[in-house]
Amino acid sequence: MYTARLFAALLLAVVCLATQEEYDNDILEEGITLTDSQYGSLWPLPQKVQMSTVVFKLSGASFQIVDAKESSSGASCSLLQNAYRRYFEYIFPSARKQGHVKKKTPASAVSELQVWITSADTECDGFPNVTSDESYQLSVDSPVSVLKASTVWGALRGLETFSQLVYEGEYGAKSINRTEISDFPRFAHRGVLLDTSRHFLPIKVILANLEAMAWNKFNVFHWHIVDDPSFPYLSRTFPQLSQQGAFHPYTHVYTPSDVKMIIEFARLRGIRVVPEFDTPGHTQSWGKGQKDLLTPCYSGASPSGSFGPVNPILNTTYEFMSMFFKEVSTVFPDAYIHLGGDEVDFNCWKSNPDIQKFMEQQGFGTDYSKLESLYIQRILDIVSSTNKHYLIWQEVFDNGVKMKADTVIHVWKGNQQQYQDEMSRVTASGYQVLLSTPWYLNRISYGQDWQATYKADPQDFNGTDAQKKLVVGGEACLWGEYVDATNLTPRLWPRASAVAERLWSDKDVRDLNDAYSRLAQHRCRMVQRGIPAEPLFSGYCAYEYKGV
Amino acid sequence: MYTARLFAALLLAVVCLATQEEYDNDILEEGITLTDSQYGSLWPLPQKVQMSTVVFKLSGASFQIVDAKESSSGASCSLLQNAYRRYFEYIFPSARKQGHVKKKTPASAVSELQVWITSADTECDGFPNVTSDESYQLSVDSPVSVLKASTVWGALRGLETFSQLVYEGEYGAKSINRTEISDFPRFAHRGVLLDTSRHFLPIKVILANLEAMAWNKFNVFHWHIVDDPSFPYLSRTFPQLSQQGAFHPYTHVYTPSDVKMIIEFARLRGIRVVPEFDTPGHTQSWGKGQKDLLTPCYSGASPSGSFGPVNPILNTTYEFMSMFFKEVSTVFPDAYIHLGGDEVDFNCWKSNPDIQKFMEQQGFGTDYSKLESLYIQRILDIVSSTNKHYLIWQEVFDNGVKMKADTVIHVWKGNQQQYQDEMSRVTASGYQVLLSTPWYLNRISYGQDWQATYKADPQDFNGTDAQKKLVVGGEACLWGEYVDATNLTPRLWPRASAVAERLWSDKDVRDLNDAYSRLAQHRCRMVQRGIPAEPLFSGYCAYEYKGV
Repeated sequence: MYTARLFAALLLAVVCLATQEEYDNDILEEGITLTDSQYGSLWPLPQKVQMSTVVFKLSGASFQIVDAKESSSGASCSLLQNAYRRYFEYIFPSARKQGHVKKKTPASAVSELQVWITSADTECDGFPNVTSDESYQLSVDSPVSVLKASTVWGALRGLETFSQLVYEGEYGAKSINRTEISDFPRFAHRGVLLDTSRHFLPIKVILANLEAMAWNKFNVFHWHIVDDPSFPYLSRTFPQLSQQGAFHPYTHVYTPSDVKMIIEFARLRGIRVVPEFDTPGHTQSWGKGQKDLLTPCYSGASPSGSFGPVNPILNTTYEFMSMFFKEVSTVFPDAYIHLGGDEVDFNCWKSNPDIQKFMEQQGFGTDYSKLESLYIQRILDIVSSTNKHYLIWQEVFDNGVKMKADTVIHVWKGNQQQYQDEMSRVTASGYQVLLSTPWYLNRISYGQDWQATYKADPQDFNGTDAQKKLVVGGEACLWGEYVDATNLTPRLWPRASAVAERLWSDKDVRDLNDAYSRLAQHRCRMVQRGIPAEPLFSGYCAYEYKGV
Repeated sequence: MYTARLFAALLLAVVCLATQEEYDNDILEEGITLTDSQYGSLWPLPQKVQMSTVVFKLSGASFQIVDAKESSSGASCSLLQNAYRRYFEYIFPSARKQGHVKKKTPASAVSELQVWITSADTECDGFPNVTSDESYQLSVDSPVSVLKASTVWGALRGLETFSQLVYEGEYGAKSINRTEISDFPRFAHRGVLLDTSRHFLPIKVILANLEAMAWNKFNVFHWHIVDDPSFPYLSRTFPQLSQQGAFHPYTHVYTPSDVKMIIEFARLRGIRVVPEFDTPGHTQSWGKGQKDLLTPCYSGASPSGSFGPVNPILNTTYEFMSMFFKEVSTVFPDAYIHLGGDEVDFNCWKSNPDIQKFMEQQGFGTDYSKLESLYIQRILDIVSSTNKHYLIWQEVFDNGVKMKADTVIHVWKGNQQQYQDEMSRVTASGYQVLLSTPWYLNRISYGQDWQATYKADPQDFNGTDAQKKLVVGGEACLWGEYVDATNLTPRLWPRASAVAERLWSDKDVRDLNDAYSRLAQHRCRMVQRGIPAEPLFSGYCAYEYKGV
């Protein structure tokens, strides 16, 4: 139920899509025309939206977000109580307390949002997981609106949606339309990968981006925590790893309490923290604090002084990995660990006489992918024994390593044809799959690159319905070669938002014009909430970013 | 005079260029090897540097920057007094005041930097201009170092250089090597273009970037202040221009006092502010507040409702422009105004019957570039009458408009061959020239794109020595389609630093390895001073950016 007048006001308040001829032409060159979305600034678009032209007001002096009487959740659920406060402040950044005289709420106002958790187990004190129910129903009416969800996870998503429905009407009055929304995610795994090895990311940066993830209904923080350049994870069992392997052992590490805080901050927003400890490649920084872990490379008959991937032929390697992953499995509560397994360079293994001998003994010939598989197999067994499931980069599948049936294969390589073929192969083998290839957001180009990001679809490949169901979702990846605290946030947002909508909304939500209009407003909302999300094109936000 | 030990310490303190094999390989892929520069973190590299291995210490409790006794400048020159305080704080971000007991300065310390202005006219209260003498001599010795310059402009450059020589030695002690530097810029015009029309840039963002410009010895802020999307310049004479043409008439405008503050802030750092008021194209926003200024476009026999470039056939146009540029010439003290003149679209002019008639009367046939030239010619005369010189985009030259001999032609179009040919043609015609084509920093690509930026040279074209001397310099341009306060600063720095060195240092300073090492440290210094300059590659700064 769309009225041009209403949304024209909304658009004016939030973002100016200029009307100059030349400027319009520029936009048209990009294949986008300027139309106001009937869905205002909703992002990602809910599955079912019925919006009426009836407008209600909200007063910062009297509006409340409260537990519904029927709700199985109450004052003791600090996850929800925190969320109520957070979203109240997003809606009313500068609300004043009501005076002594209690005025009657006018008929045309929403005085309360009641949050009703229907399951006996609210999951308030649990951790979100891949089977969490994130669905919700939102009914915006006067004087009372109701948000109904099975668990707290759906309630969090619904609170975000409610906050996105509020806009500034005439005279800056907070307004909301009578609306019915029924919503649920298309995919269960909607992630963002951040890389804290190529550059260290201060806690503050990680927390700010977790916050922005929640605004986009992302639910997985894939923490690529260590890699070749540095090892910032402070391990209680092996403190030498970060002592020697971090850029700096005090200023550039994540202590156990840092990690705990990040996990809790994420949990409060319905976000899982899936750590990645990538082996046997990408481990140069591990070698600094753990003697004999890496393979000594040879130059002719003698060691060259440099080191290759993890040494897969020593018992000490597996003893170390068992202890290390035992710790990791207790530090990170998520049911999954990402085990990496990508880009193993065989040159160093090939140069090493002990490895050559081992290859001979095993009858591997010169097929070093068999050696890699042997290593990975043992790591998978180690991690399985800690009762964790695993995600793994596609090479492990490509090399034919035997994996548990519930393993998730993470596809990241190739052009469109290649990754779609890989999705077919993986799902034909019965494995679950996660897509990232089209969403390597570290790769930048001039112009509105969010459009290509937006168009990619993880179920676009040849396969049966059963195969398509094995797609658990996707992840936007921001590898760290060229980003750190100085530029990560504007480079991630709103580009990752395009991925967020693809993974949450119905597969038929593909209209670039409608998306442009909503996304421009969504990015201004992120800016107003304090995140330096970069612009899509010329224009402005009513509240510009206040930092430098 | 290079000692590996010294600079190893320096590098460790400022930036870690990791030593992992894989990481090195990545760097090598980019064509860069990791070597420490013998010039530490100096950027841009001075013309002559003699650095000894003798190390002095500096104490924050006693070190002073003072006027030399012989200096023609004194306490009344607030430009220099401000600069002394600013640079003291860069060197000692957290210095404590000296206690009661005055200790004798040890023999191995620098206790004073004496700044000696040698000209009778220090130019302290003037504005920098294209002939300003920015040369200086710096002698770092114990107990007294001396910075000698003809005017305050050279002193400002020398203070920056002195601050870049200071590094943290063992135990964090501020250290500096005995050094002799004799320095001057290769080009007189070293600019950065910022665009405040496609997105409004808050004052704070402009000031922060002026500060960073000074650290890079840039000396021109080319303020592309208005354009099609918005008109944020608040004109005293024609307040309707911003009232109607700005994104918002209160929150998205530059008031006269804003402009004054920006000019003074820039002056204190030896930076000229050259405003651009681009006509007759790029003027959609002008038309909103100034009736009949733009050409009404026709669709068949009747006006289409949209407008084209400035209407060049009305007397009212020139009356308006005379008054407008009279104001501009008093508001902006610089001797130059940039008059634009680029990308005039003839379609609207062609559609308008009045224009067609005028073309006929003038005997222009269908050559609309003659109409454009007629307009530009009159604008140049108007601006000349205000005693200003002008810069102009290359199209004006290409169209054969008659210009005063001291006009500067700004080259921005084409590929390398094309812009080099244009530089040849412009200088063969005896005009001065400014290069920007290879330095459109709004264009981004994945990886270390600073290298291509760095390699371009404005004197690389076919021409005589006399022609080469007509190159006044260049400008890094950051057009605003995709940047605003959220991402402008990290996108500009340190990418613009590559342009800064090309324009300041000797033409033979071209070693990418040496540049990489110095630039990585220079970017960390910018971060430490509070500017979110983005990383060149994996690694870290001792002091990471503290914002989000």
